[in-house]
Amino acid sequence: MRQRNKPWADDFLRENTDLIIPNANEYKNKWKDLFGNDSPIHVEIGTGKGQFIVGMARQYPHINFIGIELSKSVIVTAAQKVQESGLSNIRLIQENAENLLELFMENEVDTIYLNFSDPWPKNRHEKRRLTFRTFLERYEEVLHPSGELIFKTDNRGLFEYSLVSFSEYGLLLKEVSLDLHRDDDPENIMTEYEEKFSAKGQPIYRCKAVFN
Amino acid sequence: MRQRNKPWADDFLRENTDLIIPNANEYKNKWKDLFGNDSPIHVEIGTGKGQFIVGMARQYPHINFIGIELSKSVIVTAAQKVQESGLSNIRLIQENAENLLELFMENEVDTIYLNFSDPWPKNRHEKRRLTFRTFLERYEEVLHPSGELIFKTDNRGLFEYSLVSFSEYGLLLKEVSLDLHRDDDPENIMTEYEEKFSAKGQPIYRCKAVFN
Repeated sequence: MRQRNKPWADDFLRENTDLIIPNANEYKNKWKDLFGNDSPIHVEIGTGKGQFIVGMARQYPHINFIGIELSKSVIVTAAQKVQESGLSNIRLIQENAENLLELFMENEVDTIYLNFSDPWPKNRHEKRRLTFRTFLERYEEVLHPSGELIFKTDNRGLFEYSLVSFSEYGLLLKEVSLDLHRDDDPENIMTEYEEKFSAKGQPIYRCKAVFN
Repeated sequence: MRQRNKPWADDFLRENTDLIIPNANEYKNKWKDLFGNDSPIHVEIGTGKGQFIVGMARQYPHINFIGIELSKSVIVTAAQKVQESGLSNIRLIQENAENLLELFMENEVDTIYLNFSDPWPKNRHEKRRLTFRTFLERYEEVLHPSGELIFKTDNRGLFEYSLVSFSEYGLLLKEVSLDLHRDDDPENIMTEYEEKFSAKGQPIYRCKAVFN
């Protein structure tokens, strides 16, 4: 995910505050006001270069999408993709996922997507994985009770870990695919990584879960 | 799993009642007496031709293994393998897994193995899958509270289904492997099917779960 530093990224962020929302915590519990409608709010954590969120927003115009991405030099690429798309149902936040509770009120989010999150394979980095218990606590807080957590990865170790972590936390699995592209889900929108890894013939894993 | 009918199977069963236990329900709550020791009881449901149970019994001499298999013509092959092994910590039962509660008392079993169970891929056959809710109820009844259910299969659809079924039932996942042979578990004992399918390069899935 690390990219060459983009010196113009800071300028870009300053000039596009309608799309990459600064001080996003001020919109906590007010995201629907910002979008100007009552559509459901779906949040992608780790938006990367934006292919997934733009594809989703195009496919589901009556859903509002918010992409969270920590890296400035990556989020500007996503922002450019959003601008090119002309879509109005996307906003981006340059922020650490650890601060999720400062961004959203309890029950404010209808779906959370984790796509190809950093696997942090070393045991001593377990706490950094986006499916570690402390992150699940945050997702549970901001998700509506009927809201889904949808997790997709090509990383076998992370998926195995996450299934156990979800189970320990008491999440209810609604759906599991251990080879998503062979299931041929016509609604699946691929991330940049997904295209690359899937082309190598590696299986893509996905699950959908709810807090209950 | 279906095999050519073996006309001598009935005779074999009659002549080897010390190994393939007739009227096994009479040993409910008395299996340790039959084995003559206090070792834990592990049960394999769908023992097939017996390679797994014989390998396990050899590897773990201080565990008693009971294999349940419905097909007469298959169980005799397993029985011959047991006889050739010379192991005394195995017994077999020619019975339908539906009747598990007639065979074991509450808490009498320490581990249950499901290996390469029939996937019953059609939705209308869901109730026949050995990981369907009604079977989980039986396993919960006979398993000791700390006892594990260990499930292994090469069938992706069945494994996906089973993870959801376990989650819905409230089972706690302790371990998941989505490519067991790449994990290189030196204690893994392969079934006949596992050898065959794994040789084709297909992943073997395994999970361990407890009722809690």
